[in-house]
Amino acid sequence: MDGTSGTSSTSSTSSTSKAADNGTKASGTKAGDAEASSGKAHGTVAQRLIEDHLLDGPMVPGEEIALRVDQTLTQDATGTLVMQELEALGLDRVRTEVSVQYVDHNILQADERNAEDHVFLRSAARRFGLWFSKPGNGVSHPTHMQRFGIPGRTLIGSDSHTCAAGSLGMLAIGTGGLEVALAMAGRPLYVTMPRIWGVRLTGQLPPWVSAKDVVLEMLRRHGVKGGVQRIIEYHGPGLAGLTAMDRHVIANMGAELGATATVFPSDEAVRAFLAAEGRAEDFAELATEPDAAYDLDEEIDLSSLEPLIARPTSPGNVVPVREVAGEPVGQAVIGSSANPGLRDFAMAAAMVEGRQTAGSVSFDVNPTSREILQDLTRSGATFALIAAGARIHQAGCLGCIGMGQAPAAGRNSLRTFPRNFPGRSGTEDDAVWLCSPETAAASALTGVITDPREWAGTHEVAYPRLRLPDRASVNTAMLQPPLPAGEAARVELERGPNISALPDLDPLPDTVEGPVLIKAGDDVSTDEISPAGAKALPYRSNIPKLAEFTLTRLDPDYPRRAAKTREDGGHLIVAGENWGQGSSREHAAITPRYLGLRAVLAKSFARIHWQNLANFGVLALEFDDPADHDRIEADDRLRLTGLRAAMAPDAPPGLRVRNVTRDEEYAVHHRLSPRQRRAVLAGGVIAALAREGDRD
Amino acid sequence: MDGTSGTSSTSSTSSTSKAADNGTKASGTKAGDAEASSGKAHGTVAQRLIEDHLLDGPMVPGEEIALRVDQTLTQDATGTLVMQELEALGLDRVRTEVSVQYVDHNILQADERNAEDHVFLRSAARRFGLWFSKPGNGVSHPTHMQRFGIPGRTLIGSDSHTCAAGSLGMLAIGTGGLEVALAMAGRPLYVTMPRIWGVRLTGQLPPWVSAKDVVLEMLRRHGVKGGVQRIIEYHGPGLAGLTAMDRHVIANMGAELGATATVFPSDEAVRAFLAAEGRAEDFAELATEPDAAYDLDEEIDLSSLEPLIARPTSPGNVVPVREVAGEPVGQAVIGSSANPGLRDFAMAAAMVEGRQTAGSVSFDVNPTSREILQDLTRSGATFALIAAGARIHQAGCLGCIGMGQAPAAGRNSLRTFPRNFPGRSGTEDDAVWLCSPETAAASALTGVITDPREWAGTHEVAYPRLRLPDRASVNTAMLQPPLPAGEAARVELERGPNISALPDLDPLPDTVEGPVLIKAGDDVSTDEISPAGAKALPYRSNIPKLAEFTLTRLDPDYPRRAAKTREDGGHLIVAGENWGQGSSREHAAITPRYLGLRAVLAKSFARIHWQNLANFGVLALEFDDPADHDRIEADDRLRLTGLRAAMAPDAPPGLRVRNVTRDEEYAVHHRLSPRQRRAVLAGGVIAALAREGDRD
Repeated sequence: MDGTSGTSSTSSTSSTSKAADNGTKASGTKAGDAEASSGKAHGTVAQRLIEDHLLDGPMVPGEEIALRVDQTLTQDATGTLVMQELEALGLDRVRTEVSVQYVDHNILQADERNAEDHVFLRSAARRFGLWFSKPGNGVSHPTHMQRFGIPGRTLIGSDSHTCAAGSLGMLAIGTGGLEVALAMAGRPLYVTMPRIWGVRLTGQLPPWVSAKDVVLEMLRRHGVKGGVQRIIEYHGPGLAGLTAMDRHVIANMGAELGATATVFPSDEAVRAFLAAEGRAEDFAELATEPDAAYDLDEEIDLSSLEPLIARPTSPGNVVPVREVAGEPVGQAVIGSSANPGLRDFAMAAAMVEGRQTAGSVSFDVNPTSREILQDLTRSGATFALIAAGARIHQAGCLGCIGMGQAPAAGRNSLRTFPRNFPGRSGTEDDAVWLCSPETAAASALTGVITDPREWAGTHEVAYPRLRLPDRASVNTAMLQPPLPAGEAARVELERGPNISALPDLDPLPDTVEGPVLIKAGDDVSTDEISPAGAKALPYRSNIPKLAEFTLTRLDPDYPRRAAKTREDGGHLIVAGENWGQGSSREHAAITPRYLGLRAVLAKSFARIHWQNLANFGVLALEFDDPADHDRIEADDRLRLTGLRAAMAPDAPPGLRVRNVTRDEEYAVHHRLSPRQRRAVLAGGVIAALAREGDRD
Repeated sequence: MDGTSGTSSTSSTSSTSKAADNGTKASGTKAGDAEASSGKAHGTVAQRLIEDHLLDGPMVPGEEIALRVDQTLTQDATGTLVMQELEALGLDRVRTEVSVQYVDHNILQADERNAEDHVFLRSAARRFGLWFSKPGNGVSHPTHMQRFGIPGRTLIGSDSHTCAAGSLGMLAIGTGGLEVALAMAGRPLYVTMPRIWGVRLTGQLPPWVSAKDVVLEMLRRHGVKGGVQRIIEYHGPGLAGLTAMDRHVIANMGAELGATATVFPSDEAVRAFLAAEGRAEDFAELATEPDAAYDLDEEIDLSSLEPLIARPTSPGNVVPVREVAGEPVGQAVIGSSANPGLRDFAMAAAMVEGRQTAGSVSFDVNPTSREILQDLTRSGATFALIAAGARIHQAGCLGCIGMGQAPAAGRNSLRTFPRNFPGRSGTEDDAVWLCSPETAAASALTGVITDPREWAGTHEVAYPRLRLPDRASVNTAMLQPPLPAGEAARVELERGPNISALPDLDPLPDTVEGPVLIKAGDDVSTDEISPAGAKALPYRSNIPKLAEFTLTRLDPDYPRRAAKTREDGGHLIVAGENWGQGSSREHAAITPRYLGLRAVLAKSFARIHWQNLANFGVLALEFDDPADHDRIEADDRLRLTGLRAAMAPDAPPGLRVRNVTRDEEYAVHHRLSPRQRRAVLAGGVIAALAREGDRD
């Protein structure tokens, strides 16, 4: 069985759109892509969701639109900064329908800083009227879906995998923390209207192939930039075989495709999910209209898929498992928001039950929420996992964001996680592979990378028919509801010594001149700009301290050299394609800005990071001629003049950059809306709002 | 009810012996303690154990005896060095009945070093014929008791809580790593014959009072030095109500009393325990003889005890819980080798079942072994704990040794752990309290320190009658047995980049001349000589790297200055009283020796560090006239001549030290046995043994 054979009908589509994207993905205003004829979409679920929340702007791909935000989520790694932003905005109480502060990232607690962040976040949630999800309650995305997800609503979150809630027919978008803070303050979300990419699913998944393989197939076809400036909307008869939690898996890793959002309709699968969660009343149907059309079209025959795996060190390096079978494995990890469902753990448990994982393998199980851990425990799956040698960890993100579980250098670690960027595991020279729970469990048993079909054949194992409970172990006791307004107003923020206030950022000067401190290639992730991991993460609430880790994977000396430029006009960065891909962390904009970064010149930017740069007053400039990238070297001095006029609302987007060192000039342009220009001029959105406030 | 009222008959004994100990603890050869009349003990279980393993020396308190070692255990934090010592000893295969390498300390894996240590330890266990307990299998002490504990055997381990195995009628002693390595090589353990302290237990524990309160009562009466140079032997009718695992709790924290060992008889409770573990055939009765007498006597009426708690920051600060009730609690943790039993978790589960822990409390549950986690899960207790808000962690030591779970600064953390030394939790200004699972669970529910009797009364909760399974979920699959000799011989050690070989140490030269690099005062601890903590701990397997932290708390420049002396005759240290107090870590002898330390001149030495210095070839010399300490200054050059003759077996202990800088001479002496002199001459015990081997 060859999973790629059934997809030949769509391969021309894929490769065409992929090629087209390379030129256009980062500049939504240039329509391009002949076969797509932007704007032809109509009657789609995504458009319905946008229409229902549209406050401003035309629904034309590439144009900025303003959306009403119904719900927000924040997690602890980004949330401490968001709470400080609420404070800086002078907010009294959130204005959304639901805002939830989760604690799921920094829960190892190697020293007092994590626990102090938790105390601070709880006090801020109580102060500002948020729900608070205690450490141990689980990963934000599945927990939010279980307890708060409502079809037809909008959700934004300061976590790039917020898009997972698209599984319930929500428009769910990962953003920078400041967007979330502004949404909580009742302000709209500004976003570039994406194109709608219809992915028609047909057929049924074969045994041993699951939802993770669907999204890995998307990544195999389109790579990590395939979804940029698009909403991926899944439709078609194949949906019937995918539960809401399966769709979560697929929607979650839409982030790895670079998509703005992933949307599923709200259908019987969603109704069943909400009923199981005791929230049948929250169901609302949301279907594609009969004559719907998409800006771009794609098709996947589910029955043609086979187990896939992303090789180190990118989610885009996807190959069939059988091609890499036999490689030795040191670790296999089940869990994370990319495979969060009861089904995923129950499948692994069914496979390892009565067996023992290989002696050389650490088999780690990260329950995604305490609800799921309860259901697993009730069903006996927890017992089976432990008996087979699993290390059962507390519910949370853990190794997925490099908090523990770091593998030995160079030893293969198979994970059901969404990302395997280099070093994200905490191990410098790591070898992390991304796969389904089936592939991870089979490989944990054999000690080598194993196609679960092959393993099943060898051991004569029938494909498990899982019996999952109709009703989940709903337990909201670790979800603390918002305090009543009067009581909330009296809550004091409990700020530990590691929680700094937000740094003041100065307005954009008319001239920026400084050295190029980093000359980077393509696809640098925010993990490389502002690392996570056990060393840096505890400083997420402390910008001056966190800044000491900025870009050190590219240049260990960057923080020191950058800080020296701070009092002397600042510095610039030159980058290739897709600068700032991956995680939504706004720290990747704030910390270099704090160290004196004034402008990034790139071939293109990843969506969230591009917005974060504007939010914190860093100029994001794109080369008119990408070849100019090669003409600039590290340490060249660049000069930009007349910037304040160039940021006027009606000024043209083009600018000239002078290379003082080489006596050359390059044409660049920005894509900032008038709103963003005001923010950049003021030194960032918070400064701009404060200025508005002054005028009021 | 006042738990102290029933103990007045013994209080004079306690205070007298406490005072006597203060004078004698560092020099076991001074008998002292008139009322105890050393050596009067006979017919005790402890003496029977010693007699059965005595290879050399008289069983007279204060005299050195040599014991045959049947079993050893090592854990990962100390084990990597022990495995390097086995390598340096040229050992082919362990000669003990059972030797087990556990991985339970460093299992957070913040970066690759933990996982690489695990890989190295597994390869070493396979190479040298040890059992290997995989990460996730559990904490060494309860796991060893469950799978390997045999009444009547001796066990030593490179972990201070090895003494817990006294619960099964074993003689179990925590030692330095080299002692364990030598025992594995078939050599005896040398130890000073302790006095036998009989503690007669009468009565039965009241509801809500448990084994932890018994050992806390011992600490309340006698403090953290109360057991120095003693074996605590529990006897009497009160034993009948204590299970083997209850006794583990009491024996474990004998370490906190400073005792050499804690011994229980092997009786029906032990028989029942071994039967439940599927090892009925390993039972052997071991009883006190009818006319037995002890060197010292004590009595505890169990029925008079009440819930106790050790305040921050010493296990000796014990008070009744009711005296501190009402203090706010931020964290409660159940687990560790000090409360490892199924019963301890099941009791907490029964208390929180159907209830919810307080919003402000993090309720952490650390299963001690996967066997216990399986039994908890089978019985429904895991479900009840999760439902009540518990964060269930992987099986291991975790917060007990400061690996994660650090509380917020200044916020009370109640733990069922054995130690609460300042900062041990990972939080500099921590407030850790030690208590029973009953007290921890009641306090987790209320959010304030709570006497469980008070809580039960208020909520009309009947004391839970736990039904524990007759048969444990025995599962040895994560315990990898020793390889057959032929196969073992072919195993290559898998040494990650962070694992160095043990440095070669050269023989003692006839003349030592060098500068005094450190001039120290009194009571310098091994923590100051070789620091622990998050920065240094990961280098426990890497002597050259760890050496860079040596003595930096006294002189940040010491490592660099010391290394410069290495090729030039080395250097000396001058110290006051009690040099090297505290932790037993042998790193505090090896790292300065590696940096060129040849001799320490001190007013006096702490016992274990003194032994470690001899083990690694450093001369420990005491001033005949302590006032000479003040005559020497830092950077003075000192010279010792005729050392090889002075180390002859029959040479007198006195030496002369010449101060070349000041043209003065001082009289000093050593206390080395002939065995230790041979070691110092050769450059340490390992070199001495290698030399013996050459002669064979």
